Amino acid sequence: MKENQSYETTSKVSVAENKTLTKEQYRKKMQRRKEVQDQRIADASLEKGLIVVNTGNGKGKTTASLGMVLRSLGHGYKVAIIQFIKGAWEPSEKKAFSFWKDNGQLEFHAMGEGFSWETQDRDRDIEKAQAAWNKGLEYIRDPEYKLVLLDEINIAIKLGYLRVEEVLAGLEEKPERNHIILTGRGAPQSLIERADLVTEMSLIKHPFRDQAIKAQPGIEY
Amino acid sequence: MKENQSYETTSKVSVAENKTLTKEQYRKKMQRRKEVQDQRIADASLEKGLIVVNTGNGKGKTTASLGMVLRSLGHGYKVAIIQFIKGAWEPSEKKAFSFWKDNGQLEFHAMGEGFSWETQDRDRDIEKAQAAWNKGLEYIRDPEYKLVLLDEINIAIKLGYLRVEEVLAGLEEKPERNHIILTGRGAPQSLIERADLVTEMSLIKHPFRDQAIKAQPGIEY
Repeated sequence: MKENQSYETTSKVSVAENKTLTKEQYRKKMQRRKEVQDQRIADASLEKGLIVVNTGNGKGKTTASLGMVLRSLGHGYKVAIIQFIKGAWEPSEKKAFSFWKDNGQLEFHAMGEGFSWETQDRDRDIEKAQAAWNKGLEYIRDPEYKLVLLDEINIAIKLGYLRVEEVLAGLEEKPERNHIILTGRGAPQSLIERADLVTEMSLIKHPFRDQAIKAQPGIEY
Repeated sequence: MKENQSYETTSKVSVAENKTLTKEQYRKKMQRRKEVQDQRIADASLEKGLIVVNTGNGKGKTTASLGMVLRSLGHGYKVAIIQFIKGAWEPSEKKAFSFWKDNGQLEFHAMGEGFSWETQDRDRDIEKAQAAWNKGLEYIRDPEYKLVLLDEINIAIKLGYLRVEEVLAGLEEKPERNHIILTGRGAPQSLIERADLVTEMSLIKHPFRDQAIKAQPGIEY
């Protein structure tokens, strides 16, 4: 918990500064900013499928991925989700996604057996992780699946259940326009280097740890 | 971009270490870990609605919030989304959420007019932000809405369109069991102190900036 540290203020428009500008100065300033922004968008013209990594010890790695899954489904794309650690789909997520599961747009496979401290059998964990990866590869190779979410795969790599070299080689089999998301804390450096979009979610404050509040429906599951 | 920095490895199970353990040693180690984890879950017993903040300059602040919205909808809860900056709903999100909009579980209000450099009129921005906040307050006070998402409100505060004191006072009107999510970069320190769960999303690598790749459907919208 880092309550007293101060946080980034990346905006170039400081509040105090804006308050001293006349309305016309403000308008001009914002106009210049819009020109820069428009140019930046115009310059970014390359269309390609992305390799996305959500890592870090904070919340939101899987949750943000589910948001991306939802957008892809909204676009009418086919999506596959492979869960490497969990052995079942959260009931609320299952219910929320049931429409797309039923209409054939979404494939879901929970191929883990809980976290490793639940199973206490390393050989079995390795076997499960390999099976999940093989299933993931099927979807990665299939051009129809515009988005493949490999949920918690980074943990499987980190625990030594999957070799990162094998995963990196598999990512190269992705059709040009398709996306892959890899989640889990402790993403290996070589994966970060290969990825196009990498976000680190950091925990600043957590009720579970700091205040003995239990996991809440609608937020954590 | 920080390609060459190394990332956190928070797991206490290092790969090299595990590989030297016998199967039985591994099992025992994981068993101890499971006991610790189970105790931690048993200790966390407090049920309460959370104030959640997603901040930082990375991706995933809004996207992770949409994942939480989806889970809440899956639980059958009512949810309200107020967008403080955007003036319209992304078509893919609109389509994906249409089932719950139609069945009355989800209320959505996009009450901004683009980012401030789009509007170039500060008075109008302030007026819009205040209207969005008033709408948000209606849902915050309504016990039926288990989750209220105030999307990009941190930016409205940061730009001086809303006073943080007003927002903090409004959060206190939340019914005990309900959740509020506040997103946007540059969350003020006083909000971080008040919140229960705070995550900072940091940009490690971004295709838009680094490789001139344009925003991709299914990922960014």
